[in-house]
Amino acid sequence: MDYQQFFKGALDELRDQGNYRVFAELERQCGAFPNAKSHVAGADGEPTSDGVTIWCSNDYLGMGQHPKVLAAMHDALDRCGAGAGGTRNISGTTHDHVLLEAELADLHGKEAALLFTSGYVSNWAALGTIASRIPGCVVLSDALNHASMIEGIRHSRAETMIWKHNDLEDLEHKLASLPLECPKLIAFESVYSMDGDIAPIAQICDLADKYNAMTYLDEVHAVGMYGPRGGGIAEREGVMHRLTVIEGTLGKAFGVVGGYIAASGELCDFVRSFASGFIFTTALPPAIAAGAAASIRHLKQSGVERETQQSKVAQVRADLERMGIPHVANPSHIIPVMVGDPVKCKFISDVLLKDYGVYIQPINYPTVPKGTERLRITPSPVHSDQDIAHLIGALGDLWDKCQLARQPLAAQ
Amino acid sequence: MDYQQFFKGALDELRDQGNYRVFAELERQCGAFPNAKSHVAGADGEPTSDGVTIWCSNDYLGMGQHPKVLAAMHDALDRCGAGAGGTRNISGTTHDHVLLEAELADLHGKEAALLFTSGYVSNWAALGTIASRIPGCVVLSDALNHASMIEGIRHSRAETMIWKHNDLEDLEHKLASLPLECPKLIAFESVYSMDGDIAPIAQICDLADKYNAMTYLDEVHAVGMYGPRGGGIAEREGVMHRLTVIEGTLGKAFGVVGGYIAASGELCDFVRSFASGFIFTTALPPAIAAGAAASIRHLKQSGVERETQQSKVAQVRADLERMGIPHVANPSHIIPVMVGDPVKCKFISDVLLKDYGVYIQPINYPTVPKGTERLRITPSPVHSDQDIAHLIGALGDLWDKCQLARQPLAAQ
Ligand SMILES: Cc1ncc(COP(=O)(O)O)c(C=O)c1O
Ligand SMILES: Cc1ncc(COP(=O)(O)O)c(C=O)c1O
Repeated sequence: MDYQQFFKGALDELRDQGNYRVFAELERQCGAFPNAKSHVAGADGEPTSDGVTIWCSNDYLGMGQHPKVLAAMHDALDRCGAGAGGTRNISGTTHDHVLLEAELADLHGKEAALLFTSGYVSNWAALGTIASRIPGCVVLSDALNHASMIEGIRHSRAETMIWKHNDLEDLEHKLASLPLECPKLIAFESVYSMDGDIAPIAQICDLADKYNAMTYLDEVHAVGMYGPRGGGIAEREGVMHRLTVIEGTLGKAFGVVGGYIAASGELCDFVRSFASGFIFTTALPPAIAAGAAASIRHLKQSGVERETQQSKVAQVRADLERMGIPHVANPSHIIPVMVGDPVKCKFISDVLLKDYGVYIQPINYPTVPKGTERLRITPSPVHSDQDIAHLIGALGDLWDKCQLARQPLAAQ
Repeated sequence: MDYQQFFKGALDELRDQGNYRVFAELERQCGAFPNAKSHVAGADGEPTSDGVTIWCSNDYLGMGQHPKVLAAMHDALDRCGAGAGGTRNISGTTHDHVLLEAELADLHGKEAALLFTSGYVSNWAALGTIASRIPGCVVLSDALNHASMIEGIRHSRAETMIWKHNDLEDLEHKLASLPLECPKLIAFESVYSMDGDIAPIAQICDLADKYNAMTYLDEVHAVGMYGPRGGGIAEREGVMHRLTVIEGTLGKAFGVVGGYIAASGELCDFVRSFASGFIFTTALPPAIAAGAAASIRHLKQSGVERETQQSKVAQVRADLERMGIPHVANPSHIIPVMVGDPVKCKFISDVLLKDYGVYIQPINYPTVPKGTERLRITPSPVHSDQDIAHLIGALGDLWDKCQLARQPLAAQ
């Protein structure tokens, strides 16, 4: 077998389908976010546009440049140095990790929390461990769950039932098909990141109670942004205490990096003790833990970032509406502008970047199903009114130039 | 099913076996490493010992407190802020990521490199993707490979053959049993982290050539520390160009956090394009990338850290020898002092911490096989002669007090 030829062939196929990904090389500018310097090379090899405005970041609240977060990180760097120097078990647990886990447990009203190197690893390791270690456990997984959850469930080799996305009837039907004493785990998200729709958490908890199932809720796209203290959709709806596990990330609204679960003391201790993906890896740097803790602490007592985000989202939506630019209606902060074709989607994105200094990465397969390619817009409290006017103007121009459809799409 | 009871029962079982892990809570002190503040509570609830010396860190060269690394991180924090704000594809690729990947490709003499959130994820994602995507690929895996490699291989669901640890004859026997045209991947490590022995890389490459196999080498416990520029054991032995993939971490000798592979442009692009664990996760913060790049750059041109580490290792070994404290002979920087019992191992570690301010985490199952529990000592260039004298004195005392065997064990 010619291995190089195989790799090359697979990449050529991606290119032919329009699914080959080119990463935009940016230089975030602290204090000026969402503005950044672009290192994307144009035809002449020079950066195409010096200044760009990022409209697709998951630094949803701009906390990545918050003075308190940066001060905590600078301070921890000076106090503790760069890395943790070991796995959590072998010299890698520092005071900052312990404080962060306490902050997270408090955020979600749980006894304990457990930190992972990313949200991806937290889902993979926690779901993989819980579902594989409980004999006969059946996982009931929402059809649109994130790749990290799917991989964790797959890794567990537990029996899996996929229920129709956000469909309580289908979930109940599947729960009822299992014996009451059979161990069950319902895995789902609150805000789904690509369509921006929200799960009926309370009703899912009702079903879990009725059928004696555990619940595992991914709040990655909600923590920091919903609920009076940023505890997520479950906090906003007063149901945090009803969930067995709440999972979140430190890399999106909290602006840093890392992931976690919050749950009972025993459950966290169980995952801590048995999860390969938790045990056999270097702990996050103390400075990361300190920065994330500062971010969470700030967002527990400050509502202005959440309110301003919501109002910017409403403003962008209203402007898109006015211009007849098709976008998916949903109750969250995520605005998907549907294009439905990978080549066209990339073309629009390229022109936005090159001619308008507007950066919105085209979202294509495998992140979304083929045929639902989109531009995913995430307004933040740090986007100015001029930023919004410029974005809407650019999209309007392009919709004219490319003769794209103007009638608004219905919510998917 | 009573889920809480299940978790509690599993934890009680660990406690009964002596395998329940208690993490030592430390506070690394930048500039004073390997000294740290201990937050471990004693019987009275107060920290047992204010100052401790860490003797089990994987910040092998003390680069976690190197001024160049810290300066690069402070600078990137001020330039770019805290987090990357997105996955590599969606706004998370910054100039610092691109520079780091170029630095890594150069370190290993490869066309390209690809960054992951950790060494664990790099092994899991790269092995999982390569082995699952090449139709009919058979993985030949060393029996003592790290958990992250095992999970990646398991995830691929490819056919797997486990060859006896570092045994060329067994490897050749297994390779010869497969058709020449069958795609094959030999996965192994250079320095094995718990025994400190080293693989015969050149001979494994000879076999790979003979049987048309790819090679995947984990240099996690070697990068930064071996070879004229810190490229690892493969660099030292002049065989980097013969390996298909070299994998490493940024969290051990380089002192920060993160993982990577270095390989041909096509192979890296293939993993970049298809690996779930690379695609669906927030990119490392720019400050982490900048700190790691500074560390690599420094260790490419400075040999003094490597030389001093080697001399400290030789000194500790000689002193242990002189005292008759049993340790495994091996050609690396890792000194395993074998205890062979989880309860005794933890007891010694507790006394060392409480009475001597010496921190060496007991290594127990599942990190090492049951019955091979050990204290794993990792001397670094920043351990002083007094630190060494104190360590040896403490171990001598304890070996007397606990009437532990004094004859040196043979190398395993
Ligand atoms: C729903 C969901 N869960 C988990 C993750 C992974 O979190 P992280 O980026 O911290 O790895 C993501 C995206 O990255 C996500 O969208
Ligand atoms: C051999 C080996 N490979 C990979 C890893 C994982 O690297 P990281 O700590 O960067 O996740 C480790 C230890 O942590 C290891 O010992």
